[in-house]
Amino acid sequence: MAGAPAPHGFSNAAAVLHGIDDLRFEDFPMPLKPGEGMVRIQMKAVGICASDVHYVRKGRIADFIVDGPMVVGHESAGTVIEVGPGVKRLKVGDRVAIEPGVPCWSNKASREGRYNLCPDIEFFATPPHHGSLREYIDHPADFCYVLPPNVSFEQGAMVEPLSVGVHACRRGEVKPGKNVAILGAGPIGLFTLMAAKAFGADSVAITDLKNDNLALAEQMGADICLNPKASATPAEVGEWLKASLPPYGPDVVIDCAGFESTLQTGIRACVAGGKVVMVGLGSEEARFPLSIAACKELDILGSFRYCNTYPLCLKLMESAKVDVNPMVTHRFGFTAKEVDAAFDTAARAPITGAIKVMFNLEGPDDDDDEAA
Amino acid sequence: MAGAPAPHGFSNAAAVLHGIDDLRFEDFPMPLKPGEGMVRIQMKAVGICASDVHYVRKGRIADFIVDGPMVVGHESAGTVIEVGPGVKRLKVGDRVAIEPGVPCWSNKASREGRYNLCPDIEFFATPPHHGSLREYIDHPADFCYVLPPNVSFEQGAMVEPLSVGVHACRRGEVKPGKNVAILGAGPIGLFTLMAAKAFGADSVAITDLKNDNLALAEQMGADICLNPKASATPAEVGEWLKASLPPYGPDVVIDCAGFESTLQTGIRACVAGGKVVMVGLGSEEARFPLSIAACKELDILGSFRYCNTYPLCLKLMESAKVDVNPMVTHRFGFTAKEVDAAFDTAARAPITGAIKVMFNLEGPDDDDDEAA
Amino acid sequence: MAGAPAPHGFSNAAAVLHGIDDLRFEDFPMPLKPGEGMVRIQMKAVGICASDVHYVRKGRIADFIVDGPMVVGHESAGTVIEVGPGVKRLKVGDRVAIEPGVPCWSNKASREGRYNLCPDIEFFATPPHHGSLREYIDHPADFCYVLPPNVSFEQGAMVEPLSVGVHACRRGEVKPGKNVAILGAGPIGLFTLMAAKAFGADSVAITDLKNDNLALAEQMGADICLNPKASATPAEVGEWLKASLPPYGPDVVIDCAGFESTLQTGIRACVAGGKVVMVGLGSEEARFPLSIAACKELDILGSFRYCNTYPLCLKLMESAKVDVNPMVTHRFGFTAKEVDAAFDTAARAPITGAIKVMFNLEGPDDDDDEAA
Amino acid sequence: MAGAPAPHGFSNAAAVLHGIDDLRFEDFPMPLKPGEGMVRIQMKAVGICASDVHYVRKGRIADFIVDGPMVVGHESAGTVIEVGPGVKRLKVGDRVAIEPGVPCWSNKASREGRYNLCPDIEFFATPPHHGSLREYIDHPADFCYVLPPNVSFEQGAMVEPLSVGVHACRRGEVKPGKNVAILGAGPIGLFTLMAAKAFGADSVAITDLKNDNLALAEQMGADICLNPKASATPAEVGEWLKASLPPYGPDVVIDCAGFESTLQTGIRACVAGGKVVMVGLGSEEARFPLSIAACKELDILGSFRYCNTYPLCLKLMESAKVDVNPMVTHRFGFTAKEVDAAFDTAARAPITGAIKVMFNLEGPDDDDDEAA
Repeated sequence: MAGAPAPHGFSNAAAVLHGIDDLRFEDFPMPLKPGEGMVRIQMKAVGICASDVHYVRKGRIADFIVDGPMVVGHESAGTVIEVGPGVKRLKVGDRVAIEPGVPCWSNKASREGRYNLCPDIEFFATPPHHGSLREYIDHPADFCYVLPPNVSFEQGAMVEPLSVGVHACRRGEVKPGKNVAILGAGPIGLFTLMAAKAFGADSVAITDLKNDNLALAEQMGADICLNPKASATPAEVGEWLKASLPPYGPDVVIDCAGFESTLQTGIRACVAGGKVVMVGLGSEEARFPLSIAACKELDILGSFRYCNTYPLCLKLMESAKVDVNPMVTHRFGFTAKEVDAAFDTAARAPITGAIKVMFNLEGPDDDDDEAA
Repeated sequence: MAGAPAPHGFSNAAAVLHGIDDLRFEDFPMPLKPGEGMVRIQMKAVGICASDVHYVRKGRIADFIVDGPMVVGHESAGTVIEVGPGVKRLKVGDRVAIEPGVPCWSNKASREGRYNLCPDIEFFATPPHHGSLREYIDHPADFCYVLPPNVSFEQGAMVEPLSVGVHACRRGEVKPGKNVAILGAGPIGLFTLMAAKAFGADSVAITDLKNDNLALAEQMGADICLNPKASATPAEVGEWLKASLPPYGPDVVIDCAGFESTLQTGIRACVAGGKVVMVGLGSEEARFPLSIAACKELDILGSFRYCNTYPLCLKLMESAKVDVNPMVTHRFGFTAKEVDAAFDTAARAPITGAIKVMFNLEGPDDDDDEAA
Repeated sequence: MAGAPAPHGFSNAAAVLHGIDDLRFEDFPMPLKPGEGMVRIQMKAVGICASDVHYVRKGRIADFIVDGPMVVGHESAGTVIEVGPGVKRLKVGDRVAIEPGVPCWSNKASREGRYNLCPDIEFFATPPHHGSLREYIDHPADFCYVLPPNVSFEQGAMVEPLSVGVHACRRGEVKPGKNVAILGAGPIGLFTLMAAKAFGADSVAITDLKNDNLALAEQMGADICLNPKASATPAEVGEWLKASLPPYGPDVVIDCAGFESTLQTGIRACVAGGKVVMVGLGSEEARFPLSIAACKELDILGSFRYCNTYPLCLKLMESAKVDVNPMVTHRFGFTAKEVDAAFDTAARAPITGAIKVMFNLEGPDDDDDEAA
Repeated sequence: MAGAPAPHGFSNAAAVLHGIDDLRFEDFPMPLKPGEGMVRIQMKAVGICASDVHYVRKGRIADFIVDGPMVVGHESAGTVIEVGPGVKRLKVGDRVAIEPGVPCWSNKASREGRYNLCPDIEFFATPPHHGSLREYIDHPADFCYVLPPNVSFEQGAMVEPLSVGVHACRRGEVKPGKNVAILGAGPIGLFTLMAAKAFGADSVAITDLKNDNLALAEQMGADICLNPKASATPAEVGEWLKASLPPYGPDVVIDCAGFESTLQTGIRACVAGGKVVMVGLGSEEARFPLSIAACKELDILGSFRYCNTYPLCLKLMESAKVDVNPMVTHRFGFTAKEVDAAFDTAARAPITGAIKVMFNLEGPDDDDDEAA
């Protein structure tokens, strides 16, 4: 943590949520040294996720309630500036993407390869764990991944939302021979679209009520973009999707919205024997056509965060099989004023057109100079 | 079809549904000879399924509507009395269990090994296809399976409902290392219980509101029998199931009821990363805790009929790994009067205590003399 | 079969193998009409496969022995000129790719979705079944697949060898996150390469002793091309492959050669827990490092022909995700003289540089005019 | 480590291998306290595995070479006598089975659920790691599993070899509907047999050249026991196995011997599309019928040690689904003299009839008094 003191005078400036709509730019002191197996990282790029906005505006998501000061942010990349004892795989100067969830390894789920389901996982910005929107952080080296030379910090930060899409595609077993329908063209829908294309889906259809998002989806490679209009019924949208993905309709539906209407659409659209992946969490409950789902012998599959995705996502970026750069619609530096503006931009996405709002912690100008 | 004319004077007596509550015992003429690849079977044992009762009482199930005379019945076994051209695997005198659904093989689902999802499957007693509650039937030899010597015709008829349980266990990947909860201890729940034990589940818990059914479940090998009482909430029953299946609760839940309450119970009880199999079709729609299902990353899996189960079920019976005999609570001969009585007994199961009502088409006395 | 008589005066000219090196261009009479479920096809394009050459030169492959006249050829496409009774999915004029193996559906393997393992499959040009290098053929409509408008007859014929590659990739579960090594850059290795790229492999390395083949592989998208020279040991080539596919080496090895040297190379190169797919049949037996394979817990997977690949291959061609056209190095018309020349070209591939030798049955000039 | 000093005067007596045939009973000092996350265990039962004997007699197994003093033994159970900092799941007095391999969690294989393939795993008695044949050991609490009350220490020690069988059955996907052939009825073959029965295999055939072992196999539940005599060819034994497991032969072959003859037998016996699991390591290399394996589209699957098996094995023992007790043919106390005698008994198994030789570290009389 050498170098000139930051202009704000803090040892480690952070965006700390103290309560509903009470996000403060303040100091967040650190230990003197990173611990065993840890590295200290100077943060370079942090993206805002819808869940960050949700915590700021509502103070909770489902049963996760912010009841003490909590640093927000979990999409992040930076540079290793110090390594703790026992760290072998990383060295000072390494540019890394940071996986925000660290499982323990003493539970069955983790040991069986699904560490995202570890009941004791410590995940950035999920109460009571602090997030990564701060200047410095200590993190286990095992959950930091070196960026290939041609991958920027911003891209590194977007490994996180791309991971959500990759995991959803793995859950749905997207591959050649499968048509895919993605419901919702918000950020997660768009990252899932990129993943589905990389996994070799035959054709990918995507739906949204916002034409701007669909336009971006088309740019990202969607084969069919469908705006069903708010008045359409799930049965109608289901039929449109079937017709748009010949010969049988979608083999895999990935619901990135998570509303009753999308779930019902997905179950109706999906071919018999197909898969409906639940990623979005728009509603806590939904009416569900149980007999259709049973008689079509669907797999309706929850998809929660991700595991074992970071190396793959970096490969996809390095090889240019996915290009996440068009996702960044707004960039901000890391000052008290800009933090406010950035969250305001993200929160008013339907008006601002924000998809991915990105902090460049050393200012938007000097970021990414290492990367082509 | 040689031999003395039957006492009723029909060439092929059958139980034919003409409309709601209009089930007639009448003649159902046959072609002169079985066709290419077909065998002619003299029926020996036919069980009544809840769906048969449902068609008789309501005239429909979901979108399947009885709109012309239809022979009922689909759980059946008999003796081959004639073989059509091209039949190699069967000969006159073979005792066989009859698989009621015959797919075409020109669709993707069948070719990929899921012929139960064939869109053109012809399934006994599913409109417009006739069922098997009749004295003689022609059926493709490929869907008739020779009974081992120690398996009776009644057992042969029960291969059908056991298949439903076996398929559900396959869908849920029941095996050693998995705790299983079965919701509903009606016939399908009980057959599923037997299958789950044969598949090596660690412990199997079963729930029902009827103590008689639970008593039978205990006899069939259930490790835990739970009557949650009608007033319990899904959250409560879910907790009870978790507690009764240490250390984590059920890894696989098989919902053989298909009501909102059972689906909600299942989703709450199931461990993170577990599987909820939907077999029962109690309700067409149900409210569904979407966010719990997604965040626990459950697999919610439809299970529709079965495929590739008959040889296995016969092995399980032959080796006595499952004993389906206690399932038969009532037996009837095949006369006009007894058909009425049998359906009445099945329809009033809560009062009569009927689990499996079985027709012995040559009278209850002389059945099964071939089997030990 | 209307139209002017062909110049050769035969009703149905065919390339018929009568014995070793005794391939005759002669008449092969047909029935008057296609049977139930069959279509009559006027053949347009037929490719030569190494197995065709092998039968001509050796009279046998493994236990398949040519002991009567047999039409050769199994990579084929043509136009439907007549439909038999009961055919619904096809009509006269349809341009189709022809799947050469027709299973029965009464065996376990077929019913479980692996119809390539049907013990009674009737496969073109595998004794005693006739092949497709003839002017007309009757074939089950269910095994004919309509060509998309932008897919030519030649491409349609190449669906067959592409299927071998697709099936191998499915067996090996090639997908994003997996590095792939393909051993052998002959026709099957090259089709497998195209498939592996379409399935989203991270990087694909390919080996061969012939630089010309490697040059073509590079053109087809291979990430790494390696000529190990004949003197290299399997351990050496294994190390080179590991080094060329960072970080761990190949997750999937597909052996398209099938020699002791390639199998040993594959087992040594493959990461622990990885998959080695056996496609090529260069040797009947091979020494095998059993303890390495066991301790690395490899999956060594046979891959035999294919199933359920035709619709996918046509999609891959239609969408231009694979471009098989560069595979055709030599084209011939269908006359006695040209049949001899074509087989000679194929048999002397190391000298002629032949990869895929293709017959255009109406002459090379007028073929493919329907396709772009 | 309280209590009266042991009669031998050592603080921690251990069986330490110093070189070929140089196994010494000597003191093996311990640290003062168990470390973070560790527990200190007083060993109660330790079994001898063939690999222990192999190290003693040959000084190496494959590339693992004993080049310094090494404590032998890895099948073990004992009582927790002290817990290190941070241990929550265990307490003093807990009776535990000890999993001998401790992976790191920073590699891909472990994170994907196959921690047995961790390249840095520390496994008892695999050079350079010390084994567990000693009075006291410190071990990570996460790899110690509480014994159910009705499971003895000896059974706890046998969780290890049973795990090898369970893992092999998982690799081979043994389940109802599958016939299984096990090649070799030594200890691992017999434990695999028990596992295969618990996994619900239809019928299990087992082969060995020793009738005594086959007799034990029959007692353990083998459906078919076959002594092929040394002169039989793999093709002959393969045919016998096929005939003994109707209708098609073994769907899964588990080779617990690992010789060329058994591998060849397995590949010939196995049904098309079936699985051959390689567990035994009798030979480093073997000739292998490559074309049969490829054309039958077999899965030939390495099986190395195990992962995630301990909880299941303890369940199987607790529920009496497997009874491992008959495996213990010889018992010894833990003195210099008895260590020699025990290894001698194990090494001369063909003469002594030893299957499992077991040390009871507090003497054979007072062991197991906690268990029924």
